[in-house]
Amino acid sequence: MSTPFDDIRDLFADLPAPCHDSALAVRRRDAELTKPPGSLGRLEEIVEWLAAWQGHAEPRIERPLVAVFAGNHGVTAKGVSAFPAAVTRQMLDNFTAGGAAINQICKAHGIGLKVFELALDHPTRDFTEAPAMEEREAAGTLVYGMEAVDGGIDLLAPGEMGIGNTSSAAAIYAALYGGPAARWTGRGTGLDDEGLARKNAVIDAALAFHAGHLSDPLEILRRLGGREIAGMMGAILAARRNRVPVLLDGYVACAAAALLHAMNADAISHCLAGHVSAEGAHRDVLERLGKKPLLDLGMRLGEGSGAALAIGLVKAALACHSGMATFSSAGVSGKDA
Amino acid sequence: MSTPFDDIRDLFADLPAPCHDSALAVRRRDAELTKPPGSLGRLEEIVEWLAAWQGHAEPRIERPLVAVFAGNHGVTAKGVSAFPAAVTRQMLDNFTAGGAAINQICKAHGIGLKVFELALDHPTRDFTEAPAMEEREAAGTLVYGMEAVDGGIDLLAPGEMGIGNTSSAAAIYAALYGGPAARWTGRGTGLDDEGLARKNAVIDAALAFHAGHLSDPLEILRRLGGREIAGMMGAILAARRNRVPVLLDGYVACAAAALLHAMNADAISHCLAGHVSAEGAHRDVLERLGKKPLLDLGMRLGEGSGAALAIGLVKAALACHSGMATFSSAGVSGKDA
Repeated sequence: MSTPFDDIRDLFADLPAPCHDSALAVRRRDAELTKPPGSLGRLEEIVEWLAAWQGHAEPRIERPLVAVFAGNHGVTAKGVSAFPAAVTRQMLDNFTAGGAAINQICKAHGIGLKVFELALDHPTRDFTEAPAMEEREAAGTLVYGMEAVDGGIDLLAPGEMGIGNTSSAAAIYAALYGGPAARWTGRGTGLDDEGLARKNAVIDAALAFHAGHLSDPLEILRRLGGREIAGMMGAILAARRNRVPVLLDGYVACAAAALLHAMNADAISHCLAGHVSAEGAHRDVLERLGKKPLLDLGMRLGEGSGAALAIGLVKAALACHSGMATFSSAGVSGKDA
Repeated sequence: MSTPFDDIRDLFADLPAPCHDSALAVRRRDAELTKPPGSLGRLEEIVEWLAAWQGHAEPRIERPLVAVFAGNHGVTAKGVSAFPAAVTRQMLDNFTAGGAAINQICKAHGIGLKVFELALDHPTRDFTEAPAMEEREAAGTLVYGMEAVDGGIDLLAPGEMGIGNTSSAAAIYAALYGGPAARWTGRGTGLDDEGLARKNAVIDAALAFHAGHLSDPLEILRRLGGREIAGMMGAILAARRNRVPVLLDGYVACAAAALLHAMNADAISHCLAGHVSAEGAHRDVLERLGKKPLLDLGMRLGEGSGAALAIGLVKAALACHSGMATFSSAGVSGKDA
């Protein structure tokens, strides 16, 4: 009989490949646009990426979505965050009321926003004392996260909210890439030196507790992860299966990408890094994932905020590609003419 | 009797200082917003910068403007560009028809666009054989550029178009910061190796021709500059005098900023670097100007395109500051609560 994690592994079969013909069509049109070849730099790369993963020579961004997954973490009992665990729920109410940073960025750039609340009243277990989740919980949450990708969205940025979740992400990075915790952690929402030392000790204790059980990425998710990380994994995977390009947000969102990548490096080929976070070793993580961030602005908020800002760049890149005149249509002389 | 350049120098007297009270008010409100302190990184710095230079505790971006200055360059006769000089005029027609990259970016981000045509039928003189401009021409064009800043604009990004103008900018950098040309040049619109060697030789010849006359930045402008560079100098200076913050574009636009900076380092204190260009030694120039770019996307188009993209970030930063709820208004618990 197959286990819940076996069913998850089956989702990695037959992932769609990028459409090289669409990317080539974009590259050909780009060469005709009224600008020196290559002069829009990464904006040109962005449009090829959209075309390759949407599978259309004329990519569209009509329904971009930020999907924020929220979960609570038992390990907050160990004092790993500068903010109380109650803030997760309070911030969800703030999202609903339109008062958070992600609301403003989505409004400024014309991006849809959906929030997925993941059993906030039932925090994951404290991962220093037990696996954070049962296999069924982890797998079920991942599958629930897949539902974020429906209704014809054409660009996805998964984000997260969850007091304590930078500890979970750091533990995942240490498990995937090697510890100690201090190599991966940061101050999260604003720990002082003492708090950071406590966070490192807590994560190192968790790594010791789970030692010998951290070779399988899904088992790492179950033991050290959080529901929002499982949800984002599902969203990223569903996006791939549905030909929706993904912009990765920062430190915590990339823990979901890193777990997928560890299962199958090709599983995140449809993702671009929206930004590099000021938190912890995010720059190192992006290098391991082979992703060069579009933005580097010292942000460390989560909520999908860095990826949402990057959607502004992606929309402008596509506007250039779609809206510019060609040398022939505008009567502009070509190079060396 | 005062000379035209004396009149320009008089414009640097009594430049308005940043409003520290407005910046402080922004910092205080920022501390109340529903996010960890500092977690929006440079977005927070951007809003303080807007407040300090607009002189308002509640800064606004209701009329942002990209002002593109266009000029032609006699030195194109020496084969320093991959494109023919006729393209300057053709691209202005393209701007008018809405077909250029800058049109699309301005449309995507809700930015006004004005194009200032600077005597295109009368190129500057070939600076390898004579000063590019008379003193009256250079000063008059700078003053004309000041007119870009009127009508209540609240954010300015000066841009440029002019086949041959990366040669002019490289010559200016070499004159300001020391040669040889090869230290500053790039491939512009797409020179091959042979073309780049020719461009370097042409600029080195110009530096030799004008040697002994390159200690005064205005004289550097007159001898090696172009009309679009004079126009951008005027626009940046007028913005400062009228409390309009400025986003700097790339390689050529920063030649205008560098000349102002050489006259009076404080004259560009109201400027942020919108992006770092892939052209030539722009990164080095920005370091000399003390500016850290907001974007680094390998762009090298000009037209104000990099600065215009950065306006998208600035608008999102201000939207966060203005629109977010505070901890007390949203009922969110504070740090260590």
